[in-house]
Amino acid sequence: MKKRKYSIYRECQGRENLDKIPVAVIGATGAVGQRFVALLWGHPWFDLRVVVASGKSQGHIYRDIASWRLKEIMPEGIGEMNVEQIHPKTFKDKEIKLIFSALPPKIAKDVEMDLASLGFFVFSNASANRMADYVPLLIADINPDHLALVEHQKKTKSGYVVTNANCSVTGLATALKPLHEAFGIKSVVVTTYQALSGAGYPGVPSLDITGNIVPYIQSEEEKIEVECRKILGKLTDSGIEHSPINVYASCARVPVRDGHLESVLVDFKEDVSEEEVKRALSGYEGLDNKTPTSPKRPIIVTEDESRPQPIFDVYNGEPERARGMAVTIGRIKRIHGKIRFYLLIHNTVRGAAGCSIMNAELAEMEGYI
Amino acid sequence: MKKRKYSIYRECQGRENLDKIPVAVIGATGAVGQRFVALLWGHPWFDLRVVVASGKSQGHIYRDIASWRLKEIMPEGIGEMNVEQIHPKTFKDKEIKLIFSALPPKIAKDVEMDLASLGFFVFSNASANRMADYVPLLIADINPDHLALVEHQKKTKSGYVVTNANCSVTGLATALKPLHEAFGIKSVVVTTYQALSGAGYPGVPSLDITGNIVPYIQSEEEKIEVECRKILGKLTDSGIEHSPINVYASCARVPVRDGHLESVLVDFKEDVSEEEVKRALSGYEGLDNKTPTSPKRPIIVTEDESRPQPIFDVYNGEPERARGMAVTIGRIKRIHGKIRFYLLIHNTVRGAAGCSIMNAELAEMEGYI
Amino acid sequence: MKKRKYSIYRECQGRENLDKIPVAVIGATGAVGQRFVALLWGHPWFDLRVVVASGKSQGHIYRDIASWRLKEIMPEGIGEMNVEQIHPKTFKDKEIKLIFSALPPKIAKDVEMDLASLGFFVFSNASANRMADYVPLLIADINPDHLALVEHQKKTKSGYVVTNANCSVTGLATALKPLHEAFGIKSVVVTTYQALSGAGYPGVPSLDITGNIVPYIQSEEEKIEVECRKILGKLTDSGIEHSPINVYASCARVPVRDGHLESVLVDFKEDVSEEEVKRALSGYEGLDNKTPTSPKRPIIVTEDESRPQPIFDVYNGEPERARGMAVTIGRIKRIHGKIRFYLLIHNTVRGAAGCSIMNAELAEMEGYI
Amino acid sequence: MKKRKYSIYRECQGRENLDKIPVAVIGATGAVGQRFVALLWGHPWFDLRVVVASGKSQGHIYRDIASWRLKEIMPEGIGEMNVEQIHPKTFKDKEIKLIFSALPPKIAKDVEMDLASLGFFVFSNASANRMADYVPLLIADINPDHLALVEHQKKTKSGYVVTNANCSVTGLATALKPLHEAFGIKSVVVTTYQALSGAGYPGVPSLDITGNIVPYIQSEEEKIEVECRKILGKLTDSGIEHSPINVYASCARVPVRDGHLESVLVDFKEDVSEEEVKRALSGYEGLDNKTPTSPKRPIIVTEDESRPQPIFDVYNGEPERARGMAVTIGRIKRIHGKIRFYLLIHNTVRGAAGCSIMNAELAEMEGYI
Repeated sequence: MKKRKYSIYRECQGRENLDKIPVAVIGATGAVGQRFVALLWGHPWFDLRVVVASGKSQGHIYRDIASWRLKEIMPEGIGEMNVEQIHPKTFKDKEIKLIFSALPPKIAKDVEMDLASLGFFVFSNASANRMADYVPLLIADINPDHLALVEHQKKTKSGYVVTNANCSVTGLATALKPLHEAFGIKSVVVTTYQALSGAGYPGVPSLDITGNIVPYIQSEEEKIEVECRKILGKLTDSGIEHSPINVYASCARVPVRDGHLESVLVDFKEDVSEEEVKRALSGYEGLDNKTPTSPKRPIIVTEDESRPQPIFDVYNGEPERARGMAVTIGRIKRIHGKIRFYLLIHNTVRGAAGCSIMNAELAEMEGYI
Repeated sequence: MKKRKYSIYRECQGRENLDKIPVAVIGATGAVGQRFVALLWGHPWFDLRVVVASGKSQGHIYRDIASWRLKEIMPEGIGEMNVEQIHPKTFKDKEIKLIFSALPPKIAKDVEMDLASLGFFVFSNASANRMADYVPLLIADINPDHLALVEHQKKTKSGYVVTNANCSVTGLATALKPLHEAFGIKSVVVTTYQALSGAGYPGVPSLDITGNIVPYIQSEEEKIEVECRKILGKLTDSGIEHSPINVYASCARVPVRDGHLESVLVDFKEDVSEEEVKRALSGYEGLDNKTPTSPKRPIIVTEDESRPQPIFDVYNGEPERARGMAVTIGRIKRIHGKIRFYLLIHNTVRGAAGCSIMNAELAEMEGYI
Repeated sequence: MKKRKYSIYRECQGRENLDKIPVAVIGATGAVGQRFVALLWGHPWFDLRVVVASGKSQGHIYRDIASWRLKEIMPEGIGEMNVEQIHPKTFKDKEIKLIFSALPPKIAKDVEMDLASLGFFVFSNASANRMADYVPLLIADINPDHLALVEHQKKTKSGYVVTNANCSVTGLATALKPLHEAFGIKSVVVTTYQALSGAGYPGVPSLDITGNIVPYIQSEEEKIEVECRKILGKLTDSGIEHSPINVYASCARVPVRDGHLESVLVDFKEDVSEEEVKRALSGYEGLDNKTPTSPKRPIIVTEDESRPQPIFDVYNGEPERARGMAVTIGRIKRIHGKIRFYLLIHNTVRGAAGCSIMNAELAEMEGYI
Repeated sequence: MKKRKYSIYRECQGRENLDKIPVAVIGATGAVGQRFVALLWGHPWFDLRVVVASGKSQGHIYRDIASWRLKEIMPEGIGEMNVEQIHPKTFKDKEIKLIFSALPPKIAKDVEMDLASLGFFVFSNASANRMADYVPLLIADINPDHLALVEHQKKTKSGYVVTNANCSVTGLATALKPLHEAFGIKSVVVTTYQALSGAGYPGVPSLDITGNIVPYIQSEEEKIEVECRKILGKLTDSGIEHSPINVYASCARVPVRDGHLESVLVDFKEDVSEEEVKRALSGYEGLDNKTPTSPKRPIIVTEDESRPQPIFDVYNGEPERARGMAVTIGRIKRIHGKIRFYLLIHNTVRGAAGCSIMNAELAEMEGYI
């Protein structure tokens, strides 16, 4: 191992190519799949060897199949990779055990579990298995202890599935965790302003959203409550004891490319001041041992009264800072004994692919890979 | 009087030209001033005789001064009107007693009160005098009894000032009034998605908002609480007893031209079902005696799970229905004992100029003009 | 027949319901189909009796099938209509001979010709048959004489097909016709800024176009030249002799809902002044005998140096004027002996459904129906 | 001197801090001023020592004065710099001879010339002095020989003024230079789609442009022709002999943040094929000796039929490539003997501040500083 520069977390130790862990991305051509691919290219620990897409893509190279929708240019090397099918043999031939999944939910449910049964370690962005009893719903720098839940899976399978959370929930849970630890939360009202990339590609038709707001995102409000309760829940011998926090969620789509903004009102068990909240949020350190993708601090508190804003803050101040892996929080205000703030999360980085990669890095550090 | 068609409320009785009440608009060239002018042109009761703008506009016709920003074409006759200064003599020469004000707040405070002292009836959209003790903060079809507050002003002045409320508050108070009457409200959490026209012209720079959300509107959150409490307050002999409802407001600007969308969560004093809320909202009838501008029903409840949306609903279904004078409400849902819904208000029609015109119509019907 | 008001062209004579001509719309649920339906509802001459959509829509009412994307509210009566299949018997049972087609091109080609063979008069927005030898590519107030081309079709069929032109071409040809007649045109350079609704629904994904311009629309540049040459061509005994005008077209999609803007540079055969061009454009009267949909003047010239603009001019000054059936032209300027101007056309009204309805009205007036 | 990494052009030799050339930016808080500041921070040759803004800004630090509108985070060190006034003494105290100007045109005209008289080397983005006889209108990698024009200024002044061109012209002239050299150009038709940042800040009001296109930019069309002729002109003993190329320009503002897109149609003196054009464009190498800011190749030709697009191409594929200093060209097509293409330029990087910085680098290499 030698020290090397890395785009997201620079002070982390990289590895020589021979020491890198071979990985695959399945569902590699969709919006989140593209983000996985972009983040894994040049990753200091992982070596992206296989990209998988649906049957029709066989025999093509990645460049010709993926409708690349990221502003970042497609890494040259990836464009030339052959697109493969989901065959255990393909993975084994390339010595791959670690698989990132951006499959659509309907397909993901069984495919991911089957791959786990065959001994693969699946880190998934799909919602299908998030609420399954022994599947960690993991944000590595928020509830790292939940990773141990895979021990339950290992009783019946040689591999396992770990999922990241819904993009809106990831922002919310990141903000709530240090506050819940410090003061105890009774209930939360959250109203979202969600970006277009959260709906994938082709996703939202332009005639629906240009100059408009759509106050409805299918199943999103329900996910926000149940996933939030699981992430903030307690790891016990028999699984996760979900937190009893009440969450009142209202979700809307807005004409913004990247970055979910959320207005949050927290009712604490005790009386809490604005200053205490700011300290708890800005002092939260996340993982003790940083991984390449985990940010120095998972939360950045801004004092600018008109921030955070998607256009300016989604990358947390590019390029020096957390590059989309931190949540920016501002407008913290005490109102009638409750605390209100706005948070912003990069929905396809920390809110999706970036989180699963961070989760896999934690698993590697903890000896699960 | 004879029956005539009118663009907003068709079934109302109009008047022959000779019977119409002469009116002026001051601050006529700004965003709200333009809306006043557009709505008053062809009004069945009022005759727009004078448009007033700041000193620099003297000696010009309206067309050359106003940067017309409405999608509706500028009525021909208005374009040719001379722009006047605020001189009581000008108003008196044209037999005007009724004045609509779209002045900027700083100027409005004294000018409006001075005009009232001189015997004019001022219906204002400016925020400056809204919270003054004896100034009705009036939404004619929501708190019509508050109009009587002008009796207090008349003790010391020959005229009076009546104001409409902030655009966001008007939407909120419209929704809350029937609910508060029916069930009693303890507190309200409101999060807004506010349109660009709410900031006037030139208003929000395009570089601030294109592809972006700005979670901050100066003083807006404070106004929402205090104005809401006054509108829902009780008229007593000594003035308005403000309602003790707690309001938790969070406000953001979004890249939409017209129509403020608001997510609302209501905590009632008793247990209330979704059905009861729908009935209370859709059954609310507003003014018993309709005026030209007052809508048939101030609230339209939609069952479409993805509505209301600014682009499609801001005019409440053009051109047959309320043309921007009704509030559209959808996504009514009971969550953990509270009621959540989304509402949409046309911020420069019902939320500004349209409301003041409706207020003046009520005053005329009640014999105050 | 008695005089009645009509939304687009008010001074036209309407008909009693019993005298109206029964019509159907096929492909009624898409973006252009919706526009057909909205414009035909309440039409003074035509009675919309049947709406047709693809097989899956059978047994449903229109409201449940169409993803209504117009800002205008769906007319109540239409929402309740049953959606039918393309069966000659259905049309005959309702005494329909006149059919408006908004079918997708692939299906349109044969279906429209088959319907013509069965004796129906098909007025189509589909591109499939536009360049067929004996099919008039008709803009009723631009090349009305081309309608006579249906006589050729009648030799082999009992009905016929008439098409309107591509939306961009309709704007361009409208502007060029009076200029070509007056001065003779050698060549034209046209660069477009095309609205989202031109791509139908779901059409352009929001991630492609939000905050972006896409300088490519499939086949559009080719269509502009060939269709323009046919429309400006001469009717001869053996068909249309296409005009030899050279057209240099460049097409881009922009984030605007409705209204194609086009920058046009015309090279005339002789020397022409700005004033001559303005006179030729603003003096063009279109059809001698107006039909309900044909505008008073097909071209509105604006002197405002920053117009036409889609948001403000697409409806030609709502609601008094041409309601989307006129082309607005501005910024006429002579540069190095050529003439440059900008034009704006409502791409789904005059540029699509509105044009076909106007074409059918002409056919009715000329005795072809 | 030692080799160091640089954000825009990596293979260039940097300098130790002591060897760097002290520079100032005047008009440092506006949109282009901010871009100057962002690009100069960390520059390998230049050391930004003074930022100047209008009188009201005195006694404040940069962070508190500039409404920072770039997506890139404001460099920490700059935020803390004191904002100074335009005093020759201030510059002399800090040993500054090289000044970058982003002054508004009205002020720029005299101030820049006065500074030149006092011995300063002024590299300006202002339009005021661009067409002055002995002022080079310079794009360093397009017409580097024009820099010698400063010799004329030096006859009467101890310093000089060099300007970069209008943002749209810079894109156009970059594309035309290699084509004019290779084949000879008779005339050019250019139609633009210009970004919001081109109008500065606050610039275009959001109500003017949201969901809209404005086909008018004051004086822009005139500038395009005259500046293009000067840039493509010939350096002679008595000054620049302007090129006689006819330019037909039509300009519109579009709702895009950064990146001017231009549709271009070129009429050559001889017959030229698409392939010849592609070779001439993609083979153009620009400066023989690269400077830190000059791109490896000033023109990138894309074969993607739907590119260039502002969102994806404005930075020429970040971060590996030209970072906004190259022009991307696509959709090259031969039509009736002429050549049509679309080009994209980053209007505030290559089109403004980046170009003046590259110009100053050339001056330094050529011994003019």
